[in-house]
Amino acid sequence: MDIEDLRSRHPDHWMRATALRALALDAVAKANSGHSGMPIGMADVATVLYSKHLKFDATKPDWHDRDRFILSAGHGSMLLYGLLYLCGDPEITLDEIKNFRQMGGRTAGHPENFLATAIETTTGPLGQGIANSVGFAMAEEMLRARFGKKLVDHHTYVIAGDGCLMEGVSHEAIGLAGRYGLGRLIAFWDNNGITIDGKVEISDRSDQVKRFEAAGWHVQEIDGHDPDAIDAAITAAKAVTDKPSMIACKTHIALGHAAQDTSKGHGALTDGDQNDAAKAQWGWTAPDFEIPSEIKDWWEGVGSRGGAARGEWEARLSEASDSRQKEFARVMAGEAPKKLSATIKALKKQASETLPKVATRKASEMVLEVVNPVMPETVGGSADLTGSNNTKTPDMGVFDTDNRKGRYVYWGIREHGMAAAMNGIALHGGLRPYGGTFMCFTDYARPAMRLAALMKVPTVFVMTHDSIGLGEDGPTHQPVEHLAISRATPNTLVFRPADVVETAEAWDIALRQSDTPTVMSLTRQGLPTLRNSHKTANLSEKGAYVLAEAEGKRQAIIIASGSEVEIAMKAREALQAGGIGTRVVSMPCMELFAQQDEAYRKRVLPGGPVRVAVEAGVRMGWERWLLGERGRANKAAFVGMNSFGASAPAEELFEHFGITPDAVATRVRDLLVGTTPSEF
Amino acid sequence: MDIEDLRSRHPDHWMRATALRALALDAVAKANSGHSGMPIGMADVATVLYSKHLKFDATKPDWHDRDRFILSAGHGSMLLYGLLYLCGDPEITLDEIKNFRQMGGRTAGHPENFLATAIETTTGPLGQGIANSVGFAMAEEMLRARFGKKLVDHHTYVIAGDGCLMEGVSHEAIGLAGRYGLGRLIAFWDNNGITIDGKVEISDRSDQVKRFEAAGWHVQEIDGHDPDAIDAAITAAKAVTDKPSMIACKTHIALGHAAQDTSKGHGALTDGDQNDAAKAQWGWTAPDFEIPSEIKDWWEGVGSRGGAARGEWEARLSEASDSRQKEFARVMAGEAPKKLSATIKALKKQASETLPKVATRKASEMVLEVVNPVMPETVGGSADLTGSNNTKTPDMGVFDTDNRKGRYVYWGIREHGMAAAMNGIALHGGLRPYGGTFMCFTDYARPAMRLAALMKVPTVFVMTHDSIGLGEDGPTHQPVEHLAISRATPNTLVFRPADVVETAEAWDIALRQSDTPTVMSLTRQGLPTLRNSHKTANLSEKGAYVLAEAEGKRQAIIIASGSEVEIAMKAREALQAGGIGTRVVSMPCMELFAQQDEAYRKRVLPGGPVRVAVEAGVRMGWERWLLGERGRANKAAFVGMNSFGASAPAEELFEHFGITPDAVATRVRDLLVGTTPSEF
Repeated sequence: MDIEDLRSRHPDHWMRATALRALALDAVAKANSGHSGMPIGMADVATVLYSKHLKFDATKPDWHDRDRFILSAGHGSMLLYGLLYLCGDPEITLDEIKNFRQMGGRTAGHPENFLATAIETTTGPLGQGIANSVGFAMAEEMLRARFGKKLVDHHTYVIAGDGCLMEGVSHEAIGLAGRYGLGRLIAFWDNNGITIDGKVEISDRSDQVKRFEAAGWHVQEIDGHDPDAIDAAITAAKAVTDKPSMIACKTHIALGHAAQDTSKGHGALTDGDQNDAAKAQWGWTAPDFEIPSEIKDWWEGVGSRGGAARGEWEARLSEASDSRQKEFARVMAGEAPKKLSATIKALKKQASETLPKVATRKASEMVLEVVNPVMPETVGGSADLTGSNNTKTPDMGVFDTDNRKGRYVYWGIREHGMAAAMNGIALHGGLRPYGGTFMCFTDYARPAMRLAALMKVPTVFVMTHDSIGLGEDGPTHQPVEHLAISRATPNTLVFRPADVVETAEAWDIALRQSDTPTVMSLTRQGLPTLRNSHKTANLSEKGAYVLAEAEGKRQAIIIASGSEVEIAMKAREALQAGGIGTRVVSMPCMELFAQQDEAYRKRVLPGGPVRVAVEAGVRMGWERWLLGERGRANKAAFVGMNSFGASAPAEELFEHFGITPDAVATRVRDLLVGTTPSEF
Repeated sequence: MDIEDLRSRHPDHWMRATALRALALDAVAKANSGHSGMPIGMADVATVLYSKHLKFDATKPDWHDRDRFILSAGHGSMLLYGLLYLCGDPEITLDEIKNFRQMGGRTAGHPENFLATAIETTTGPLGQGIANSVGFAMAEEMLRARFGKKLVDHHTYVIAGDGCLMEGVSHEAIGLAGRYGLGRLIAFWDNNGITIDGKVEISDRSDQVKRFEAAGWHVQEIDGHDPDAIDAAITAAKAVTDKPSMIACKTHIALGHAAQDTSKGHGALTDGDQNDAAKAQWGWTAPDFEIPSEIKDWWEGVGSRGGAARGEWEARLSEASDSRQKEFARVMAGEAPKKLSATIKALKKQASETLPKVATRKASEMVLEVVNPVMPETVGGSADLTGSNNTKTPDMGVFDTDNRKGRYVYWGIREHGMAAAMNGIALHGGLRPYGGTFMCFTDYARPAMRLAALMKVPTVFVMTHDSIGLGEDGPTHQPVEHLAISRATPNTLVFRPADVVETAEAWDIALRQSDTPTVMSLTRQGLPTLRNSHKTANLSEKGAYVLAEAEGKRQAIIIASGSEVEIAMKAREALQAGGIGTRVVSMPCMELFAQQDEAYRKRVLPGGPVRVAVEAGVRMGWERWLLGERGRANKAAFVGMNSFGASAPAEELFEHFGITPDAVATRVRDLLVGTTPSEF
């Protein structure tokens, strides 16, 4: 690459873009870790995008109608931090740049959305950003349809690398974007031909242009170092309104550095002499971390360029009716509507009176049927299991190219893409996404489910068919370890409600979260309503509570969740008939119970009685409640799964794996008489 | 669709294919669950494939040189069971067909490889089969290169549905197949245009032909009900030897049934009248589950057609040298070579003497460097992190179109595709795959890692950078819950070795597994060799053992794994200095420890002393060892993570999150003096 030629053709642009290059080189070198080459290679694209196209106001990074910029190639985080610092972002200061990758800073190794307002999403696990961006673009379409172009009118830009495009989730993402004609989504492919192991071609020879076209995208190919070509391509991409656009940018990783066009250039360039030589090549003479004032001034102009547009937008917002302003503010703040509480309570009361016997997936549908009409910000969907996940309610309408008001998304057989796009919708703000699949396919959605927890977004994952109760489809479709998987994940609420009432309570809690995703673990099979006496209080909020007290001396406590609470109640009946006082504790949410104070936990799980837990999943996670807590039981056992399931009708499976009232009662009796020692 | 026309044009073929249709219809109706439409729609393709192309001998389903047939669209399992029964497979009898989806049968809802010899792989979670098939085809290339065409010379056929092709893993799979020019891989796309939620177009409008071409495949489009076209397409696909082939088969789901071309047709067709009407349409007059003898005879002829070829193959095998025959038999049986044991012991001895201080990922490389030369069946690889995962050894060579003897695979940024293809390699037999990525990306590979466990294949997942010890890359790359995730999965060995010696022991165990996958959890950061006195016995085989005994009265036991064993030893030193007798238990594998008898477990974890566990992950899974076991400790605590990590240098992170010798020692002291109660 002839750097001299690039410099001479566009001298001003070159130096402005090179400010990004120099910051990346300096910050990575100082941190002695990170990725220098990507920011250096994509500096030209970023400079043109920010200065000529991106609608934003650096001083107000939370302006709702800003264009969204997502760095899917998150390892190139210094590109984003450099842009934010240069533009005058109030949070990404020069000190933060110098503090790259250090404890307590905002400039983490990969961009973390919760560390700075201007960071739209957390990226680094490859492919997530491009899949998030699909959600961002969908959210914009939905909100524009609802609130009008005066309030919602922006684009979503995303930079993806070769890694993003090799990951499977990119396939799901680009398929969705193409299918739903997301014309305001513009993706830049950093086509630098290099991965960590070597040239891209050692592991991939796909024709990305043809691939994106096959998915229904508008595609352009440009020299990613030519500012005029970049500008023209973005302009052309914006002009295509019925298709997402991909701009394949041929770039040189670590441009102008000794490591240019090599794998080494992908990583941390820390050799002082080589870095000095690169700066000399670039014509960059400023000391480390210093930006010549004329360049910094220009960038600050870029950062404030959107101020006028923001002012006009604020004026338009203030011209809207009071109720419209309030509603817009409410949904953008993620506040639940006032009516939600009464709606949930009414459903609980009705269920406690009519005692429906339904699967909790059906119970979930009953909740959504009353919630969705009063909560127009919900966005439902399923990964091609709508009828099984019970996620669609009649009022929603189907999101499509000709119905942007539709609130239900047919995600197709794309659990991962769905989860990642839902995260994008939630991150955009103004909408509250939930989506369904079979619980076993938590596995497919895992990378995005973890990121929801890390990113602190309240996405709701509706996971039905939550045990061997799924029946004949067999062990590939029967979750066994998936409750443990979600419970092991920090900042995640896992609900496994036992009936309609608990399902309503779980949704009530999930829909009020601002920082925590929820996993709803729901049955395929019908369950009785056990909460037969209406209480306005949300008992599930404490995570676990006494569902049925022991009659006579309390000798045993059975703890259960979901479909096994019915089994616990039947076991209790048998035990009480034999004179064994037995308490049943329903535990719909371990995480919330763990958050209660010790006094409450001890009231629910007092020491003394034997404890048996029953759940049609693996034991991991239950030991704490069986053996732990002050004044703990001396004897405890678990009734559940210790292997994968099998293909057979559900009732036979529960018999086969010994998850029955009889088995539970027997275990209690054995523990009490001491013929069988505690299994621990 | 004009059924009459189809019948009249190819009357013999029609009735033979319709035997598959009738069996599927009857079995699903009897089970009252399952998927009728796919077998009905793909019966023509399957009939032509089995009768004219597939090299197999139904009576010897374990013939090593058979063609592999993989039903990626696993919900259509009755197609496979019907084929096997009709061809005379010894395990899939008529009783099994009638017992479809019932307890204890071989004919599970989705094909399970461990239920019948002829079932090559377990499918159902969509996209897995097509990704497995890439591994099967790679294995064939590698073994043909090693043992020659006389012994290894077969094709891999796979049927994939729209669901398989929407899943992200299909993108990774077809990218790999295209890149590696797997000319003997032939995929049929069941292009029926229907998914569960409706027509495919409601969620996807991709151009699959263009997409496969973009990935480097040879593609044909045919009428999937025209036997001549099917035959010609397969012939043409076989003639293309440098590219994988995709045959897009336009089919009608539930052909001839009232539910044809509808979502309903995807599921269980159980309406007796409609089913009778369908059979009438088909011209099928035999009673339920009965196959007219001339049709059954013809199919049995299909089943025995390969007998001669098999005989010739056996003759060729017997002509090979003794050592060649033995080696072929050994690798196909998955037996470790005799030299393995001595090789591992020599490395252990050397390490115990020289006490290297290396990361366990590096230790793993040291093991592989001595193992790979004596174990030519290993296939290594990494998802674009070769230098970080330390998975490549000098002797391996790189697998490529011009080097089929290469044993190292550059999988690209495709963790899921890698894991699923490794499963395919293992299922093929003759090779032992291992592959690496960062442990945090367990999430990406999860669906295939679970299937390895369910399918009972000994794939080894090399997961490096296994904690916050990863450092500056931050929480997106720092596993916290992933040890718990893998430990919660049935039939999975999770090793977290503490030093070179334990790493060698872990590999020794992993490479001898026949039915169980292994997760190797390895550090980025350097660790001292703690096992400084050589023992030929594999101490890790018991899962946990006393690494350092208490001096004086035993007051505390510290249990740790991996990088935290060093911390435990340092804490012990401090405690002993203060007169507190402290035992350190190294626990590299919880699963193996759980399998030991009670006497051993009690020897390692006797009651009485306080117990503190330390591991840089979440607590879930540790409660059992802290609180459980007979004669359990009264007081226990855990030192580890209860949140996501952060971006900073590793040492600072361990300090920040309080995972230090000081913190552990303090916890022990507090428990002993009782100022801090047990945390449970």
